[in-house]
Amino acid sequence: MPYEFKVRRRVEFSETDMAGIVHFSNFFRYMETVEHAFWRSLGYSVFMRHLDPPLGLPRVHASCDFKRPLKFEEIVELHLRVTEKKRRTVSYEIRMIRVEPGPEEEVAVGKLTVVCVRKSAEGKMEAVPFPEELAALIEVAPPAL
Amino acid sequence: MPYEFKVRRRVEFSETDMAGIVHFSNFFRYMETVEHAFWRSLGYSVFMRHLDPPLGLPRVHASCDFKRPLKFEEIVELHLRVTEKKRRTVSYEIRMIRVEPGPEEEVAVGKLTVVCVRKSAEGKMEAVPFPEELAALIEVAPPAL
Amino acid sequence: MPYEFKVRRRVEFSETDMAGIVHFSNFFRYMETVEHAFWRSLGYSVFMRHLDPPLGLPRVHASCDFKRPLKFEEIVELHLRVTEKKRRTVSYEIRMIRVEPGPEEEVAVGKLTVVCVRKSAEGKMEAVPFPEELAALIEVAPPAL
Amino acid sequence: MPYEFKVRRRVEFSETDMAGIVHFSNFFRYMETVEHAFWRSLGYSVFMRHLDPPLGLPRVHASCDFKRPLKFEEIVELHLRVTEKKRRTVSYEIRMIRVEPGPEEEVAVGKLTVVCVRKSAEGKMEAVPFPEELAALIEVAPPAL
Repeated sequence: MPYEFKVRRRVEFSETDMAGIVHFSNFFRYMETVEHAFWRSLGYSVFMRHLDPPLGLPRVHASCDFKRPLKFEEIVELHLRVTEKKRRTVSYEIRMIRVEPGPEEEVAVGKLTVVCVRKSAEGKMEAVPFPEELAALIEVAPPAL
Repeated sequence: MPYEFKVRRRVEFSETDMAGIVHFSNFFRYMETVEHAFWRSLGYSVFMRHLDPPLGLPRVHASCDFKRPLKFEEIVELHLRVTEKKRRTVSYEIRMIRVEPGPEEEVAVGKLTVVCVRKSAEGKMEAVPFPEELAALIEVAPPAL
Repeated sequence: MPYEFKVRRRVEFSETDMAGIVHFSNFFRYMETVEHAFWRSLGYSVFMRHLDPPLGLPRVHASCDFKRPLKFEEIVELHLRVTEKKRRTVSYEIRMIRVEPGPEEEVAVGKLTVVCVRKSAEGKMEAVPFPEELAALIEVAPPAL
Repeated sequence: MPYEFKVRRRVEFSETDMAGIVHFSNFFRYMETVEHAFWRSLGYSVFMRHLDPPLGLPRVHASCDFKRPLKFEEIVELHLRVTEKKRRTVSYEIRMIRVEPGPEEEVAVGKLTVVCVRKSAEGKMEAVPFPEELAALIEVAPPAL
């Protein structure tokens, strides 16, 4: 069962701010990018419309420690690892590493916790256990060395 | 019947880019801000869920001419005028004027054309005439001097 | 000496996502909005170009706990409190409360830690103590009740 | 001499809005993505810091006609063609085509005009002719069939 995933992204101009570096809010978007790619690699979309009722994975917690600035046109590797798996929530750690230009350097480390929700008929979101078919797809990563 | 509306906004840090100015894509968000405030001032939300079936106003055209850079913490006045009103579409011109720090200067002029759509049961969007109660609320602005 | 600040914002359409709620990354932009307004209220811009050398306040940590969804056109109050003040860093807690439509409800609580930096001649950022004139302006808030 | 370029992108969740489709402002970011990739393919970055004085390419005009909605996880091909080349400005047309899921469909067509600027010592931007080495790299595309 998979417990990690990596994707690379090139920093776009619109992601920078007047300090000349990637705006901190965009690191959270990067974290989501690799999370969604992870689920897609398992055959699932995070917006699971093919399930009935449709499920979603809103965030209940997000955090990030910023270590080095990241700049326009640099390439960042997003390395997601599953750190916790409960009935209704899954947590990830995402390390963000500048790989170009080298040498490789960690620029930030983030965490996301998502909760499985179902939209009720009235549009309210309600936390529900992960469907078995989803829970069976992933596992908690072994400790990083 | 109203044909214009003005709001002011202070430029936020996250709207700037590494060139030290507001990223051009954000001028389109400003244009939408005043459009939505205009409809709200008339008692309507652009996402008209209280109508059955629910209607939306997606854009079919957007353009902007950029004249001067706009910077962090400056205050921009967004001045919308209705320039055309058809059965299914409405067009606006939005002038964007830096009012602080003075003296006032036009920084950009944009145009939006929106179409009234209804979501079909299968989720397809279909252009429909504006409901009479909405069309009756606005009119085309007289020519600017 | 001030230790807290409040601003209100109306949720914009471009801040929502296909789940019909404010995208989680935008809560971090809201947190920055009130932080910048706080410094502005004290007579300082976070991008302190009038100081020589110019200083900046990049984030070293940001986190948020999401409690309830926030939706288009709702009004959110951003309530910042200074929670820690060190030589080179300042930390804030930001409570985000939906005030319209009522009744008031907390939708999220975030934290930011910013570090005072100076750009070296070669463009490197270096952490430096807060200038005395800035440090003297703020203090740590008393514990919330 | 090159006159066109293509890149593909997968739509991210954070680019959608509550209408369930890509927010119109993000089409302008897509247009910039392919423009920057085009210059990069020629060995140049749009933020030309290696030139002295540094040059930039701010937009003076941007427009887009929206034909079909674009959705989360769809793949869009961005096809840029140089449509005009003057001493100080270059114009592009960018066709945006959904390529996955098929069949291919044009979702939007945009235009950008950028001006070559130099930052003066006081931080003012001034339009200048494109450096010969840049102008020599690109040419106007033949008419599309």
